[in-house]
Amino acid sequence: MRVPFETLHDVLTASLIKAGMAGDRARACARLFAEASRDGVASHGLNRFPRFLRMIANGVVDVAASPVRVAGAGALERWDGRQGPGNLNARDAMDGAIGLARRHGIGGVALANTNHWMRGGSYGWQAADAGVIGVCWTNTLANVPPWGAADPRVGNNPLVVAIPRRRGHVVLDMALSQFSVGALTAYAARGEALPVAGGYDAAGTLTDDAEAILASKRLLPVGFWKGSGLAFALDMIAASLSAGQATHEIALDPELETRLSQVFIAIDPRTLGADGDTDRIVDAAIAHLTAGEGAVRYPGARTLEIRARSLREGVEVDAAIWSEVQASAAG
Amino acid sequence: MRVPFETLHDVLTASLIKAGMAGDRARACARLFAEASRDGVASHGLNRFPRFLRMIANGVVDVAASPVRVAGAGALERWDGRQGPGNLNARDAMDGAIGLARRHGIGGVALANTNHWMRGGSYGWQAADAGVIGVCWTNTLANVPPWGAADPRVGNNPLVVAIPRRRGHVVLDMALSQFSVGALTAYAARGEALPVAGGYDAAGTLTDDAEAILASKRLLPVGFWKGSGLAFALDMIAASLSAGQATHEIALDPELETRLSQVFIAIDPRTLGADGDTDRIVDAAIAHLTAGEGAVRYPGARTLEIRARSLREGVEVDAAIWSEVQASAAG
Repeated sequence: MRVPFETLHDVLTASLIKAGMAGDRARACARLFAEASRDGVASHGLNRFPRFLRMIANGVVDVAASPVRVAGAGALERWDGRQGPGNLNARDAMDGAIGLARRHGIGGVALANTNHWMRGGSYGWQAADAGVIGVCWTNTLANVPPWGAADPRVGNNPLVVAIPRRRGHVVLDMALSQFSVGALTAYAARGEALPVAGGYDAAGTLTDDAEAILASKRLLPVGFWKGSGLAFALDMIAASLSAGQATHEIALDPELETRLSQVFIAIDPRTLGADGDTDRIVDAAIAHLTAGEGAVRYPGARTLEIRARSLREGVEVDAAIWSEVQASAAG
Repeated sequence: MRVPFETLHDVLTASLIKAGMAGDRARACARLFAEASRDGVASHGLNRFPRFLRMIANGVVDVAASPVRVAGAGALERWDGRQGPGNLNARDAMDGAIGLARRHGIGGVALANTNHWMRGGSYGWQAADAGVIGVCWTNTLANVPPWGAADPRVGNNPLVVAIPRRRGHVVLDMALSQFSVGALTAYAARGEALPVAGGYDAAGTLTDDAEAILASKRLLPVGFWKGSGLAFALDMIAASLSAGQATHEIALDPELETRLSQVFIAIDPRTLGADGDTDRIVDAAIAHLTAGEGAVRYPGARTLEIRARSLREGVEVDAAIWSEVQASAAG
């Protein structure tokens, strides 16, 4: 079923206010959830919302906490997320990086003690909407075996890269496992086989069975040894710059997964005095990429298609979860 | 066979001086080639050197050119590489980024009109040796089909991530194809099958035959659709920030591959006033990563093992190529 975006946004806002979040923050936090569903990422939108409420109830997420700057001068800052709502913290941190990039050309914010940022792409779209290049990543609980081992020791640490463009931003949002946990959950719910192998079953065999992979917590990194190496390196930057937790220190129970470390980098091309370069260069490259044989899309194109349909026809929602969330907002 | 590192360095230096490079620059350029072989990356060390000489002879590489800053204020700069030697240009650009990071916490240099940087890891080790985090990438000629197409339209754009650590830096150096062109060439030369599928043959079938993949120029991106998306996004940042060429504009003949675009980012953790964090956090994470079942290594560990053996027993060289290069330096 489909519901109007504003209805979805209003219901999520009301639910968060009931859960104790202040009105303006509830509206902003709900918007990030609603936008994820609007853009086709329900796994980190409406479908994730009930767990978010449980993590407010179990004390993992502090609805009243905002991040504070604890160190830094110039274009690099370290922030403490104080276990506030992960999407609000990430939005604030990317805003901080954007401000630094406007002043210095490039800026970075390392954020410790935060919660799951939900849809990572949100902060890529945010940067691109502000006219700047955005690069950000988060660590996660351990769910990927490093090359040579069978047990999960690195996270699948999603990485977001965004480039602003007047005719539609380039926004890449990718977990460093072949499939994100959200994608695996969606395949498992539909009882569908993955299009390519996505991890190992409990016996250590590569499989396209999403349920078996979620149970084993042995997700295949992108590019085998390459993805687990990149995930480890990004974890080391996030944890050391923020002085926060590394993946191996994060609780393995997803409902207790907290004190994550994240990095937000923004780059303002306008400080190079050549505003038009990005559009000219990216337009030409997209024209080349999408011409000829095959149905090739640039990163971000599909999001805009889904967003347009959601705004026209309503946002697609899972009926059972929508009922549950409506109940949480009522009375 | 093995030759002492200093012998290798001296012969390469002499050859470059004969090719017209000034003495101090020849020594630095030769050192980067010799270090690549010393560290186990002969594909971008000695084995690549004869082609480098041909690209000086054919006018692609200008031995006399140095990069110049063309735009930028604050922590972000745009440089023109003027088709100088790719490894010297990259070393200078990373030096520039390191200097910016020391002053601003984070710094970036975008470099246009440069040549192949040979071993990308060199600039990661350079940053880490200077005590800073380094992230850099380059675009390449098109050698990877984007998801949904059969013909190569994106590069395999190597990405380097380095974190300084007193007991051995973490340095990741990965092409965004499952195997770099250098690795494919080495497998093909040995007549060995790849350990996992590495690309498509001319008929479009996934294969572990390195020679067939080199012939088709259809390398498999890491993580299928994910790697080609990341390669495109990194290309867009490099080309737009440097105002240089994007992959689709780069000549497809490897001996004419030039005017590449690259990005160098450095981050100085000491500007956060907490010098000890990186070592404490990375040491603990490596201890966790490498403990338990399996022979897990952190990114960079193998390089240090190979380097130690090369310095002890001599650098391993291909006898035929070594003869050829010695001849180029003689007389």
